[in-house]
Amino acid sequence: MSSVQTAIIAGRGRLPAALAAGMTDPPLVAAMDGFAPEGITLDLTFRVERLVPFLRALERDGVGQVIFAGAVTRPRLDPSLLDPATAEVLPRLMAALQQGDDATLRVVIEVFEEFGFQVVGVEDVAPALLPGAGVLAGSVSQRDEADAARAAAIVAALGAVDVGQGAVVAQGLCLGVEALPGTDALLAHVAGITSLRPDPARGKGVFYKAAKPGQDRRIDLPTIGPDTLRGVAAAGLGGLAFQAGSVICLDLAEMQRLAKNLGLFLWARA
Amino acid sequence: MSSVQTAIIAGRGRLPAALAAGMTDPPLVAAMDGFAPEGITLDLTFRVERLVPFLRALERDGVGQVIFAGAVTRPRLDPSLLDPATAEVLPRLMAALQQGDDATLRVVIEVFEEFGFQVVGVEDVAPALLPGAGVLAGSVSQRDEADAARAAAIVAALGAVDVGQGAVVAQGLCLGVEALPGTDALLAHVAGITSLRPDPARGKGVFYKAAKPGQDRRIDLPTIGPDTLRGVAAAGLGGLAFQAGSVICLDLAEMQRLAKNLGLFLWARA
Repeated sequence: MSSVQTAIIAGRGRLPAALAAGMTDPPLVAAMDGFAPEGITLDLTFRVERLVPFLRALERDGVGQVIFAGAVTRPRLDPSLLDPATAEVLPRLMAALQQGDDATLRVVIEVFEEFGFQVVGVEDVAPALLPGAGVLAGSVSQRDEADAARAAAIVAALGAVDVGQGAVVAQGLCLGVEALPGTDALLAHVAGITSLRPDPARGKGVFYKAAKPGQDRRIDLPTIGPDTLRGVAAAGLGGLAFQAGSVICLDLAEMQRLAKNLGLFLWARA
Repeated sequence: MSSVQTAIIAGRGRLPAALAAGMTDPPLVAAMDGFAPEGITLDLTFRVERLVPFLRALERDGVGQVIFAGAVTRPRLDPSLLDPATAEVLPRLMAALQQGDDATLRVVIEVFEEFGFQVVGVEDVAPALLPGAGVLAGSVSQRDEADAARAAAIVAALGAVDVGQGAVVAQGLCLGVEALPGTDALLAHVAGITSLRPDPARGKGVFYKAAKPGQDRRIDLPTIGPDTLRGVAAAGLGGLAFQAGSVICLDLAEMQRLAKNLGLFLWARA
């Protein structure tokens, strides 16, 4: 019995390649025109103005399920490229775009489902990218455990109002939380905090990353990688903790090696 | 009938002088050794090691109520200065210091109350420093109202986990939230956000400031002033909104003049 053909609807960055590498059966890889991922060859590109012909092409290629992976920003639309079938679904997409990224992704998923595709998540096709509970590098002190617990409570509270997915806590003090500018901006901001910082001899602090409570796990799961660890080190923190089973690790083996070299812990927290 | 004598237990910054200027009867002003406020002459200084003799001196001066105003950091203690009566209360203060600033202030208030002083807040002695609801400068658009409402929800969620008292929202997107580094650091951080920022033509965004839900209103009410407005302007935002009746405005007349000159709104939001 052959398994169903999967297509990765790819955005920018390294996640689509990492995802393809983690899948048992080779996927078909498609990307929006202008949003090519890194390190993987595309089988197809498409434009939003011609979404319906693209969906029919996927169907002809035997695709039964799709997974969204990687970053996209709002594309500019060229009305002259619009085909009649896509013109019928475009108003829903445009309305969702006004309401923000989450609403847009919900409508995109709906459209794919209406055309008969199953939309799946990382845990369905490459569960190894979502490490389960355990200390993956270094060692976690009681102080680190307490800081991670406080950061997790802060991220949960922020998630309830649909703000970021990360926070930095040192010795119980919140040094920063993630908002629109993202993880790299937060860690750079923390790196610049000097005078108010608690004495690092008593606990350097933790960057903690988690999924938003109740988020659709097929889209927008948080992603960390070697660059995240470099940012954690530059911010003077003791390590990186994340919600076990809900955070995508790009190149875990490299992350473990790097954490060891940087003297950081890497902890998938239950 | 003469009203009760009030003492301001002052910390650093401009709040003690603003508070004294807003009070009907002239207060006695005392500060911890090394934490002198700006723009006001001290009547008394004290050291934590000799807290009880200081409290007895206040009593002799006819002080019936005290108000804490201004910033202090943890003082270094010199055991050789300790008097026997203060030595009895010091263990409680030391234990509270281990638990953080809020716990310390709660114990300090308890000690003052045990010695017969009433501890009051800004609204009790200088309510004009806490503006009630209204637009104080400029004009607030529907977009600004929506951004302020979202920021207020974010600050309330953060307050529940004892993080900061401020957030920046533009067109529904959270550009940053206040943590340990404080308001100036948040606004400087937002000023540095360029690529991810929504088009300012459709709404520049709002900095919103509020008290933590359930906080003791006698200590740590958030304070804003002309410098806050300068930070809001440098961050490219449209204005400053704050929780009506719960945020101290240093020099409101100057703030209104400055907001007008900078093209910002200043809004005490109900």
